[in-house]
Amino acid sequence: MTQRIREFLRTRRDDGPCVVVDLDVVETNYHAFARALPDTRVFYAVKANPAPEILRLLARLGSSFDCASVAEIEMALAAGATADRISFGNTIKKERDIVRALELGVRLIAVDCQAEVEKIARARDAADADGVRVFCRILCDGAGAEWPLSRKFGCVPEMATDVLEHAHRLGLTAYGVSFHVGSQQGNVGAWDQALASSATIFAECRERGISLSMVNLGGGFPTKYLKQVPGVESYGDAIFRSLSKHFGNRLPETIIEPGRGMVGNAGIIEAEVVLVSKKSEDDAVRWVYLDIGKFGGLAETMDEAIRYPIRTERDGDSMEPCVLAGPTCDSADVLYEKVPYLLPVSLSIGDKVLIEGTGAYTTTYSAVAFNGFPPLRSYVI
Amino acid sequence: MTQRIREFLRTRRDDGPCVVVDLDVVETNYHAFARALPDTRVFYAVKANPAPEILRLLARLGSSFDCASVAEIEMALAAGATADRISFGNTIKKERDIVRALELGVRLIAVDCQAEVEKIARARDAADADGVRVFCRILCDGAGAEWPLSRKFGCVPEMATDVLEHAHRLGLTAYGVSFHVGSQQGNVGAWDQALASSATIFAECRERGISLSMVNLGGGFPTKYLKQVPGVESYGDAIFRSLSKHFGNRLPETIIEPGRGMVGNAGIIEAEVVLVSKKSEDDAVRWVYLDIGKFGGLAETMDEAIRYPIRTERDGDSMEPCVLAGPTCDSADVLYEKVPYLLPVSLSIGDKVLIEGTGAYTTTYSAVAFNGFPPLRSYVI
Repeated sequence: MTQRIREFLRTRRDDGPCVVVDLDVVETNYHAFARALPDTRVFYAVKANPAPEILRLLARLGSSFDCASVAEIEMALAAGATADRISFGNTIKKERDIVRALELGVRLIAVDCQAEVEKIARARDAADADGVRVFCRILCDGAGAEWPLSRKFGCVPEMATDVLEHAHRLGLTAYGVSFHVGSQQGNVGAWDQALASSATIFAECRERGISLSMVNLGGGFPTKYLKQVPGVESYGDAIFRSLSKHFGNRLPETIIEPGRGMVGNAGIIEAEVVLVSKKSEDDAVRWVYLDIGKFGGLAETMDEAIRYPIRTERDGDSMEPCVLAGPTCDSADVLYEKVPYLLPVSLSIGDKVLIEGTGAYTTTYSAVAFNGFPPLRSYVI
Repeated sequence: MTQRIREFLRTRRDDGPCVVVDLDVVETNYHAFARALPDTRVFYAVKANPAPEILRLLARLGSSFDCASVAEIEMALAAGATADRISFGNTIKKERDIVRALELGVRLIAVDCQAEVEKIARARDAADADGVRVFCRILCDGAGAEWPLSRKFGCVPEMATDVLEHAHRLGLTAYGVSFHVGSQQGNVGAWDQALASSATIFAECRERGISLSMVNLGGGFPTKYLKQVPGVESYGDAIFRSLSKHFGNRLPETIIEPGRGMVGNAGIIEAEVVLVSKKSEDDAVRWVYLDIGKFGGLAETMDEAIRYPIRTERDGDSMEPCVLAGPTCDSADVLYEKVPYLLPVSLSIGDKVLIEGTGAYTTTYSAVAFNGFPPLRSYVI
C-alpha cells in the first residue's frame, strides 16, 4: 500500500470495486529488473496489465513488449514502442494476424511446431517482409510455480531443433529458444534445467549450420502475496550462473518477459464486504461475501492458486477462519474455501477491504457483464 | 443446429468466434416448460443470457424474470416485464441495491440469513415500500448435477424457519422457500428431498403463526450436451409427484427459474481451428487450439465440467483423441485434457467448428479483453 494509493482511495467516489495501480512502483520494478539482469532486455508481458499509462511509462523507460495478439501489438505501438521492441510471443496465431503483425513491423515471433513456422513463412510472403526472426518455445516442468502450468505451450527440446531447422529452410531467421518456468516461480534455480536444454539446442543447430542468437528466459518472476519471495537480484544471480555453466563464454543474447513481477505489487483492489453469514447456527466457519470475485477480476483464485493478502480496517482484532466468496449467483464463484482465510471476527457488512498484489491479471480477466456486474474499474495513478 | 442458424452463419462476415441464438428454439423451450409445469410460474434466469432480444421475447410470452443484480432488473424492465414479474434472486446484495430494486417496484427478494433480512427491512424503510415478500433459500446437496455446486447459497433447513420468522417480525412478508438442485441436473427425482425440507419449514412456520405461500423450485433443468437428458415433462411429472407427496392437498404456489434449460440448446458457437500440433514426434495425442477458450466464453469448461458437443465439416472421417485448448497465453486456458476429446484426424488449421449447446453462460462470462482478444460476439436471430 503506497501513500499515493491511500490518498487516491480516500478521495474517490465509491462506485463498486476498483483496482488502483501506482506507476511509481512499476518504475521501481522496471529498474530492479534492469539492474538484476543488466545484459538482458526486458519485454514486459502486456497481458498482465495493458493499461495505456503502464505501457507509456515502460516505453519511455526503454522496455520492450511481449504481445499475445495484434491488439496488444497495436497498444504497445500506441504507447510509443517501436516495432523492433515488440515480440509476438503467442505460439497460437491465426495466419492473418501474423500478416498484420509483420505489416506493423514486428519481426520477432514465437513458434512451437512446424505448422506455425509454415504460417509465418506464408505470412512473410504475403506481407513481403524481410528479416523475420522466430524462436522456438520448449516445454519446461514448472516445478516450484504457484500458478498451474500445463503442457499447452512449447514442444519437447528434442523437437525444437527440427522446428528451428524448418524455419531456417523456409528462409526465416532461426533466432533462438524460449521457455517459461511457471508463473509466480519461487525457486530461483528453476531456470537451470531449461538453460541446459537450450544450450543443447544451440549446439545441435550449430552442427546443422544454424547459428542461434537468443534465449528468451520468459517470465515467472514472482510478486509478494502472503509468502515472502526472493528478490529479483537473486533470480538474476542464479540465471547468470546457469547461463555461464551451460553456455561457457559464448553467452547468448537474452530477454525476459516479466508481467506479474512488473505490475503485481503495484496494484491494490478496494472491495466491500456485502454479507457475512453462517450456513447453520453451529457453523464453525463464517462466510464472507465481497463485491468482487472470480468473475470480477480475481480469476487467479481458480483452484485457490493465488492467495492474495487482504487488509481490513479491523486488522489487530482477533481472527477466525472464513470462507471467502464473490457476489455472483454462481456457486463456483468462491475464492477460498479449501483453505479458509483468516479474517477479523469483527469484520462486518459494509466494511472496505484491500486486496494486495492485484496489479497483474485482474483487469482484462474480468467478465464483461456476468450477472449484470460491470468489469473491474481500473485507475492508474 | 437449426436451419436459421445455418443460414446466418453461411452469410456472416467472418470476424472471429461468435455465438448465434435462435429465438424460435427459446420460444419452443418456454412453451415446453409452461406445459410441463402448468401451475408453475416461469422466472427466466437472466444471468444465463441477458440478450435484449431474448428478454423481449420471453416478456412477450408471459415469462417472469429471476435477476441477480440491479442491472439485470433494469434489463428485464426495459424488455417489457412489469416489476411484479421480477424476482431479485441473489442472496448476496448491497443494501443500496435492495433500495434501488424496491424503488423500481420489485417486491420478491431472496435471503439466506438474518443479516440479509435486516438489510431488506432497512431498505424497505428507506424506499418507503409496502408488501415486500422474502423467500429463504435452503441448502440442497446437488447430487446428480454436472456443474459443481458449493454451499455458497442457502442455509440449512433448520435455520430457515428462524430466518423467515425474523422477516415476519420485521414486517416483511415471509413468503416461502427456495433451493437449487444443481445446474445441469440429470436426476428428475433431485427435487424430492428439498421439497420434503420445504414442507417441514412450511409446517414449522405455521406453528409459529406464519403462513408461507411459495416454493421456488429453482433451476437445474438440463440442456442436451453430449449425453442424452430427460425431457422437461419428466421433470414436471416428478416434481408434481413430490409436491403432492410432501404437501398433500395444500399445494403451495410454485415458481421455477430455468436458465440453461431455456436458452442452452438455442445457441451455437462458431469457432476456428488456429493450430493443430504435437508436443513431440511420438505424441499420442494431438493438441487442437481454437480461437475461443475458457476466457472467451467457455468458462464452464472449468474442471472440464460441461462437455460441449463439437461438430466439424470433417465428421465421418476417422477420429482420434485430442487435447482441446483456447487461444490465450494462459496455461489454464485448456478446455479438455483430462478426458481428451475425439475429433477427426483430418481436422486442420483454418477449419470451422460448431460448438453446440452454447446459448447459456457464454456471452457475459467472456473476459473483457484478456490477451487483447475481444469478448464473444453474440447474434440473436
